[in-house]
Amino acid sequence: MRDNRGVTATTPRIEIEYCTRCRWLLRAAWTAQELLTTFEGELGEVALVPGTGGVFEVRLDGETLWSRTERAAFPELAELKRAVRDRVAPDRGLGHSERR
Amino acid sequence: MRDNRGVTATTPRIEIEYCTRCRWLLRAAWTAQELLTTFEGELGEVALVPGTGGVFEVRLDGETLWSRTERAAFPELAELKRAVRDRVAPDRGLGHSERR
Repeated sequence: MRDNRGVTATTPRIEIEYCTRCRWLLRAAWTAQELLTTFEGELGEVALVPGTGGVFEVRLDGETLWSRTERAAFPELAELKRAVRDRVAPDRGLGHSERR
Repeated sequence: MRDNRGVTATTPRIEIEYCTRCRWLLRAAWTAQELLTTFEGELGEVALVPGTGGVFEVRLDGETLWSRTERAAFPELAELKRAVRDRVAPDRGLGHSERR
């Protein structure tokens, strides 16, 4: 039984909610590892959250950074990293991920 | 800046805290994917939590299931899965992970 019984998490917290039936765990785990590698010192945690119904959503402290339902696509890593950087490490350059 | 500003998480929640300097992200992410595959319908989330100082710890709703500091070893997956099963799905058999 799942609920939000106020178990606290460490912020800045990224949530990656992914559709289990669509078999998107591997993509979600890959995305998590990319973000934890790039923002090793800035993120408090990255949580993998099983979901259903075609969901693939990346949230940072409750703000949706990417929603597959809205964009009809998976997040492009460089763009996702820029969105995270702008919020948790605004002064940081991202090298390859910087260019469009 | 990391803190616990009461951002709620979904329970049952597993945390895997791993030492970034020891390069244990890949092991932590692998462990997360194994648990999310086996307990796809039972877990609310699995959070990867970067840490330091040789930490590799698996917690379920705040209870430490495995601590590398205490055991001087990494978790053996079958044993870890039995510990999780006993708490979130006590009636479930684990096939290969059942035998010692």
